[in-house]
Amino acid sequence: MPPLVTLDTSQHPYLPQYSSALFAAKSLKKLSFEDIARHLGRSEVATAAIFYGQATASPEDLQVLSKILELDHAALEPLMNVFPDRGRSVEMPPKDPLIYRLYEIVQNYGYAYKAVLNEKFGDGIMSAISFSTKVEKETDQDGNNWAVITLKGKW
Amino acid sequence: MPPLVTLDTSQHPYLPQYSSALFAAKSLKKLSFEDIARHLGRSEVATAAIFYGQATASPEDLQVLSKILELDHAALEPLMNVFPDRGRSVEMPPKDPLIYRLYEIVQNYGYAYKAVLNEKFGDGIMSAISFSTKVEKETDQDGNNWAVITLKGKW
Amino acid sequence: MPPLVTLDTSQHPYLPQYSSALFAAKSLKKLSFEDIARHLGRSEVATAAIFYGQATASPEDLQVLSKILELDHAALEPLMNVFPDRGRSVEMPPKDPLIYRLYEIVQNYGYAYKAVLNEKFGDGIMSAISFSTKVEKETDQDGNNWAVITLKGKW
Amino acid sequence: MPPLVTLDTSQHPYLPQYSSALFAAKSLKKLSFEDIARHLGRSEVATAAIFYGQATASPEDLQVLSKILELDHAALEPLMNVFPDRGRSVEMPPKDPLIYRLYEIVQNYGYAYKAVLNEKFGDGIMSAISFSTKVEKETDQDGNNWAVITLKGKW
Amino acid sequence: MPPLVTLDTSQHPYLPQYSSALFAAKSLKKLSFEDIARHLGRSEVATAAIFYGQATASPEDLQVLSKILELDHAALEPLMNVFPDRGRSVEMPPKDPLIYRLYEIVQNYGYAYKAVLNEKFGDGIMSAISFSTKVEKETDQDGNNWAVITLKGKW
Amino acid sequence: MPPLVTLDTSQHPYLPQYSSALFAAKSLKKLSFEDIARHLGRSEVATAAIFYGQATASPEDLQVLSKILELDHAALEPLMNVFPDRGRSVEMPPKDPLIYRLYEIVQNYGYAYKAVLNEKFGDGIMSAISFSTKVEKETDQDGNNWAVITLKGKW
Amino acid sequence: MPPLVTLDTSQHPYLPQYSSALFAAKSLKKLSFEDIARHLGRSEVATAAIFYGQATASPEDLQVLSKILELDHAALEPLMNVFPDRGRSVEMPPKDPLIYRLYEIVQNYGYAYKAVLNEKFGDGIMSAISFSTKVEKETDQDGNNWAVITLKGKW
Amino acid sequence: MPPLVTLDTSQHPYLPQYSSALFAAKSLKKLSFEDIARHLGRSEVATAAIFYGQATASPEDLQVLSKILELDHAALEPLMNVFPDRGRSVEMPPKDPLIYRLYEIVQNYGYAYKAVLNEKFGDGIMSAISFSTKVEKETDQDGNNWAVITLKGKW
Amino acid sequence: MPPLVTLDTSQHPYLPQYSSALFAAKSLKKLSFEDIARHLGRSEVATAAIFYGQATASPEDLQVLSKILELDHAALEPLMNVFPDRGRSVEMPPKDPLIYRLYEIVQNYGYAYKAVLNEKFGDGIMSAISFSTKVEKETDQDGNNWAVITLKGKW
Amino acid sequence: MPPLVTLDTSQHPYLPQYSSALFAAKSLKKLSFEDIARHLGRSEVATAAIFYGQATASPEDLQVLSKILELDHAALEPLMNVFPDRGRSVEMPPKDPLIYRLYEIVQNYGYAYKAVLNEKFGDGIMSAISFSTKVEKETDQDGNNWAVITLKGKW
Repeated sequence: MPPLVTLDTSQHPYLPQYSSALFAAKSLKKLSFEDIARHLGRSEVATAAIFYGQATASPEDLQVLSKILELDHAALEPLMNVFPDRGRSVEMPPKDPLIYRLYEIVQNYGYAYKAVLNEKFGDGIMSAISFSTKVEKETDQDGNNWAVITLKGKW
Repeated sequence: MPPLVTLDTSQHPYLPQYSSALFAAKSLKKLSFEDIARHLGRSEVATAAIFYGQATASPEDLQVLSKILELDHAALEPLMNVFPDRGRSVEMPPKDPLIYRLYEIVQNYGYAYKAVLNEKFGDGIMSAISFSTKVEKETDQDGNNWAVITLKGKW
Repeated sequence: MPPLVTLDTSQHPYLPQYSSALFAAKSLKKLSFEDIARHLGRSEVATAAIFYGQATASPEDLQVLSKILELDHAALEPLMNVFPDRGRSVEMPPKDPLIYRLYEIVQNYGYAYKAVLNEKFGDGIMSAISFSTKVEKETDQDGNNWAVITLKGKW
Repeated sequence: MPPLVTLDTSQHPYLPQYSSALFAAKSLKKLSFEDIARHLGRSEVATAAIFYGQATASPEDLQVLSKILELDHAALEPLMNVFPDRGRSVEMPPKDPLIYRLYEIVQNYGYAYKAVLNEKFGDGIMSAISFSTKVEKETDQDGNNWAVITLKGKW
Repeated sequence: MPPLVTLDTSQHPYLPQYSSALFAAKSLKKLSFEDIARHLGRSEVATAAIFYGQATASPEDLQVLSKILELDHAALEPLMNVFPDRGRSVEMPPKDPLIYRLYEIVQNYGYAYKAVLNEKFGDGIMSAISFSTKVEKETDQDGNNWAVITLKGKW
Repeated sequence: MPPLVTLDTSQHPYLPQYSSALFAAKSLKKLSFEDIARHLGRSEVATAAIFYGQATASPEDLQVLSKILELDHAALEPLMNVFPDRGRSVEMPPKDPLIYRLYEIVQNYGYAYKAVLNEKFGDGIMSAISFSTKVEKETDQDGNNWAVITLKGKW
Repeated sequence: MPPLVTLDTSQHPYLPQYSSALFAAKSLKKLSFEDIARHLGRSEVATAAIFYGQATASPEDLQVLSKILELDHAALEPLMNVFPDRGRSVEMPPKDPLIYRLYEIVQNYGYAYKAVLNEKFGDGIMSAISFSTKVEKETDQDGNNWAVITLKGKW
Repeated sequence: MPPLVTLDTSQHPYLPQYSSALFAAKSLKKLSFEDIARHLGRSEVATAAIFYGQATASPEDLQVLSKILELDHAALEPLMNVFPDRGRSVEMPPKDPLIYRLYEIVQNYGYAYKAVLNEKFGDGIMSAISFSTKVEKETDQDGNNWAVITLKGKW
Repeated sequence: MPPLVTLDTSQHPYLPQYSSALFAAKSLKKLSFEDIARHLGRSEVATAAIFYGQATASPEDLQVLSKILELDHAALEPLMNVFPDRGRSVEMPPKDPLIYRLYEIVQNYGYAYKAVLNEKFGDGIMSAISFSTKVEKETDQDGNNWAVITLKGKW
Repeated sequence: MPPLVTLDTSQHPYLPQYSSALFAAKSLKKLSFEDIARHLGRSEVATAAIFYGQATASPEDLQVLSKILELDHAALEPLMNVFPDRGRSVEMPPKDPLIYRLYEIVQNYGYAYKAVLNEKFGDGIMSAISFSTKVEKETDQDGNNWAVITLKGKW
C-alpha cells in the first residue's frame, strides 16, 4: 500500500502556516485524502487543495477538519478562515514530472482545446474559478491503471 | 452560430506548413472540428491537434482528410506523414485567456492532483502520451453551459 | 489637435491580418476611435480592442465597420468573423511608458485590490471576460486633465 | 460574512516589518479596510496599500491608525514614517488569479487604452503616482455582483 | 573626425518605418545630430530620439526635418505625425557596452538616487515624461574628455 | 518636512552587514544625507552609495563617519574597509517606481544617447567607474520642483 | 583516493530533510555509493537519487539503509516513506560544469536523438519514469578513463 | 512502418542552410538514418547530428553523403565543410516531449550522476566533446520495446 | 587542414550587413584570419571582431580590407565606417560549447578574479574597452595543443 | 595600500561553509592571496577559487592552509576534502561591474574567439577544466596599470 502524502516544509517554504499543521495531523491520524474528502463531502482534489492553501475551507469544513484531525477549532479557525493566496504551491514550469505532464498537456493541446471549445461554445472562456475537478482510477481488462481527471468549468 | 475556427498564419509562424493548408480547406468546406472528428472517428481535440501539428495523422486519417477536405492525397501525404514536433503551438505562459485558465488550473491544483494521484496509485505519473482527452458541453437546469474536459492517461 | 492613432505593422508583426486593413481605412477616412465607437454603440476601448484583434466584432459591428470604413463586407467578413487569439499585442512587461503605468498599478496595488475586493465580495475573482471598461477625460478647476479608467467585471 | 483579510508573513517575506504589526492589530480589533478607511478619510484601496507598504501614511494617518488599532504611536511612528519601497508585494506575472485578472486586462487591452488615451489627450501618459483609485460594489437587477474599479490619474 | 551615426535596419527591425528614411537622408546630407538639433531648436538627444521613434516630432519639427533632409513633407507627415510606441529600440539588459554603462549606473546607484531624492523632495518620483536631457562634452586640463549627461525631470 | 531615509533589512537582505549599522546610527542622530555629505565633502549620491554598499569609503570617510555617527571606529573599520560587491541593491528591472523611471530613461533614450555621444566623441564609452554624479533641486517660477541629475563620466 | 561525496546543506536548502541525515551517516560510516548500492541491490545512480530525494526508497531499501547507516528505522521511516517531490536538486540551466555537460548533450543532440528514436520506434517517447540508468568506468589502452552512462527507458 | 524523419524549415529557421538540402535528398532517396549511418560508418546519432548542423562532416563523410544522396559534391562541400555553430537546434527548456524527457533526466538525476561519477573518477567532468553516443532498441520477453541510449565521454 | 571560418547568415540574422560581404570575400580569396590580421597589423581576434561587427575598422583597415578582399572601397566605406552596435553576435548564455566554456570560466572564477585583481590593484575595474586580446597556440612535449587566451585591459 | 579581500556571508549565502572560515582566518592573519598562493605554490586565481569553493584543495593544500591560517586540520579536512559544487558564486549575468566586464568580453568577442580558435586548431573546444589561469599587473611607461589575464586550456 502506498504511503500517505506528507508535507516537507523545507521544500514548500511559501505555503500558509496552517498547511504544516494539517499535514502533520493527517499523518498522525493516518488519514488519506479519500478519507477526509468523504467526511467533508467534497472531492479529493478540493480537499487536497485546502491542505495546500489553494482553496477556502467553509466554516463547516473547519468543523469537520478540526474534529477528524483532532485539532483545536479555536486555534485552527483564525489560521484557516482566510482568503487563499493562490498559485504559490507550484513554481512554473513545474519541476516534478507528474505535475509537468499536466503542464505539457496545456503546452501541446492548448490551441486544440481552444479551437474545440470555441466551435462548441462560441467566444469566451471556461472558468477556472466556477470550477470543479475530480480524479478517478480506472483499470482496464489488461490490468492497466488509468488516471482520469475531469475538469468542469462554467462557460 | 459561432464561426468556425480559422488559422491566421501571421500569428502562428512556427506551425508546420500543412496546418495552413488544412485550415484553409476546412474554411472552404465549412466543416467544424465536430464534423471532421466524426469522419475520422477520433475525438474533436485529437482532430484539432492534428490541424495544429501536435498529433500524428494515421494513413487512414490522411485518406479521410484528403477526401472530406478535397485536398490532393499525393500532395498531402509527404507533408503530413511526419513525426510531429510537439509543443510549438503555445508559448508558455499562455497569453490567450482561455488557454491561460488551463495553465492556472495546473498552477493552483498541481500539488493537489499529485497528492490525490499518489495516494490512489502510489509513486509514478499519469502519461501525457498514452493519453486521450475530450471536451463535452453540459447545460444545467438554469441554462448555464459548462465545459467538461476529461483527461485520461495511463499510469 | 492630436493626430489619429495609426498602426506601424513593422512594430506589431503578430497582430491579425485585418488589423492593418482596419487601421489603414481609419486613417484614410480620418476617423477617431470616438467616431467609430459612436457608430458601433460600443465603448471606445472595446472599439480599439477590435482593431488590435483583442475583441470579437459581432455581425452588426462588421456591417457598421465595413460601411463607415468603406471596406468590402464580403472581404472583411471571413477575416474578422474569427475567434480572437488574445494577448498578442502587448509584450510583458510592457515597454511603452503609458502601458507600463497600468502594469505598475497592478504591481503596486495588486494585493490592496485583492484585500478590498475580498472583504467586500468574499473569496472569488473579478472576471476579465464578463467585463467592460471605458476611458473618460476630466478637467479640474486648475485646468489639469485627468484620465479616468473604469473597469467593471462580474464577480 | 466573509472573513477579514489577514497577513501570512511566511507568504510575504519581503513586506516591511510594520505590515505584520498592522495586520495583527486589525485582526484583533476585527476591523475591515472599510472601517479603517472611514476613519482615515481615504479610499479603501489606499488604506490597504498602506498596510502592504505601498503607500505613505501621513502623520495624521499615523495618529488615527495608532488610535483605532491601539498600537503605541511612539513605536509605530519610526517604523511607518518612511519612504515606501514600492512594488515588492506582487511578483510579476502575478500567480494569484484575482490579481492575474488585472494583469490580463493590461496584457489584452494595453494598446487599446493607449490608442484611446492618445486620441483623447494627445501624446503623454496617465500618471500612476498622481493617482487615486477606488473599488465599488454594484448589484444588477438579476442579483449579480459587479466589481467596479476606477483609476484616476493626472495626464 | 568620427563618422556620422547611421542605421542598420537588419540590426533594428522593430523601429518605425520612418526611422530608416530619416537616417538615410541624414547620411546623404552629411548632417550630424548637432546640425539637425540646431535647426530644430531642440537638444541633440531629443533630436536623436525622434530618429529612433522615441519622441514625437511637432508639426514645426516636421517642416524643418523635411526641409533640411530634403524629404517630401507630404510623404513624411503621415508617417511621422504619430504617437510613438516607446521603448522598442533597446532590448533590456542592453548588450551594447555604452548603453549598458547607463543601465549599470541605475543598477548600482538606484537606491542612492532614491534616498537622496526622497530626502530632498519627500515621497514622489522624478518624471521620465515631463523630462529633458542633454549631453555635453568637457575637456579637463589633462586633455581628458568627459561626457556630462544631465537629466531634468519634474517632481 | 519629509522623514529621513531608513533601511528595512527585511526588504534588503543582501546588503552588506554594515549598511544596517550606518542607517541605524543615521536615524538615531537624525542626520540627512545632505548633512553627512557636507561632513564627508562628497556628493550626496556618493554618500548614500556608501550606505548601500555600492561605493568605497576612504580611510578619511571612515574617520568622519565613525565620528558623526558615533560608531566605534575600531569596530566599523574592518566591516567597511572592504571592496564593495556592487550591483546587489537593485533587482532589475527595478520594481520601485522612482528607480524604474531611471531605467525607463535608459530603455527609451539608450540609442539616442549612444548616437549623440558617438558623434561627439567617436567610438568608445562613458565610464561608469571614473564617474561622478549629483542630484540638485530646482524650483521654476510656477513653484514646480524639478530634479536635476548630472552624470559625468570619463570618455 | 578521491573523497566520498558529502552534502553541504547551505548549498542545497530545498532538499528533503532526510537527505542531510543520510549524507551525514554515509560520511560517518565512510561508505561510498558503490558500497551502499551493493547492499541495496540497486544501481549506484538510483542509490544516489534516493539520497538527493529524487527516487523512492522501498520498505526493503529502508531496512537496509537504516542498518548499514546505523540510523534508527523508526525515526527514518516516516521521513523517507514519502512520495518524492522530484526535480528540486538541480536549478536549470545547471551551473556545475559536470551536470552542464549532460545538459549540453541534450541541447546539442536533442533532435538527433529524436530523429533516430522516431525512425527506430515510430512516434512516441522514451519514458523517463519506467527508466533505469547506470554509470560505468572504462579505461582504454592508453590509460584514459571514459565514463559510460546508459539510459534505458520503456518506449 | 514509421515514416522517415523530414525537416520542416518553417519550424527550424536557425539551422544551417545545408540542413534542408540534406533532408530533402534523404526524403527523395527514402533513406533512413540507419541506412546513411551504415554508409558513413558512424553512429546513427552522429549521422543525424550532421543533418541538424551539430557535428562536423569529414571530407570522407562529404564524399559518401554526396554520393548516396546524389547531391553535387562541388556545391555541397563549401556549405558543409564549416565549423558547426552548435546548440541552435533545441530551444531550452525543450518543448517537444521526447526531448524534454532527456532534459528531465538531467534535472532529476543531475546530482546523482555527479555524485557517482565523482566517487568513481574523482573531481573532473565527463567530456561532451570527446564523446560518442548511440541508440539501441531492445525488446523484452513481454514484447515491450526499450530505448537504450549510451553516452561515452572521456574523463 | 581545418576549413576557413564562414558565415551562415540564416544563423546570424542580426549581424550588420557588411559582415556577410566580408565573409563571402574571405572565402573566395581563401584567406584565414591570420592572413588578414597580418595585413592589418592587428591581432587575429580584433580582426575577427571587425568581421562580426564588434570592432571598428579604421580608415587604414578599410583600405587594406578592400584591397586584399578585392571589395570596392567606395561601396564598403559607408557600410563599415560606422559605430559598431556591440554585443549582438552572442545570445547569452551562449549555446555553442566553445563560447560557453569562456562563459563558464566567468561563472566559476568571477569572484576569484575580482579578489585577486582587487588585492593587486585596489578598488576599480579592468576595462573591457581600453582592451586588447590575443589567442596563441602552444604544443606541449606530449604533443597536446593548448589554447592560450590573453586579455589585457587598462585598470 | 588596498585592504585585503574579505567575505560578507550575508551577500554570499550559497557558498560552502568552509569559505567563511577560510576568509575569517585570512583576515585575522592579514594574508593576501598572493601570500597564500606563494605558500601553496599555486596561482593566485586558483588560490582564491579554493576560498570561494570553486576549486579542489589537494591534501597538501589542506596541510598548508591549516598551517598558515592556523586552522585545526582535523576540523578543516572533512569540510574541505569535498567535491566542489561549482558555479554557485556568481549569479549570471554578473551584477558586479568588474565581473561584468569579463562577461561582456565573452558577449562581444565570443564568435571572434571561436573563429580564431577554429582556424588555428580545427573543430573542438578549449577546455575550461584542464585549464589554468593567472592575473598579472603591468605598468606602462605613462604609469598606467594594466591587468593581464591569461587563460590556458587544453584543446
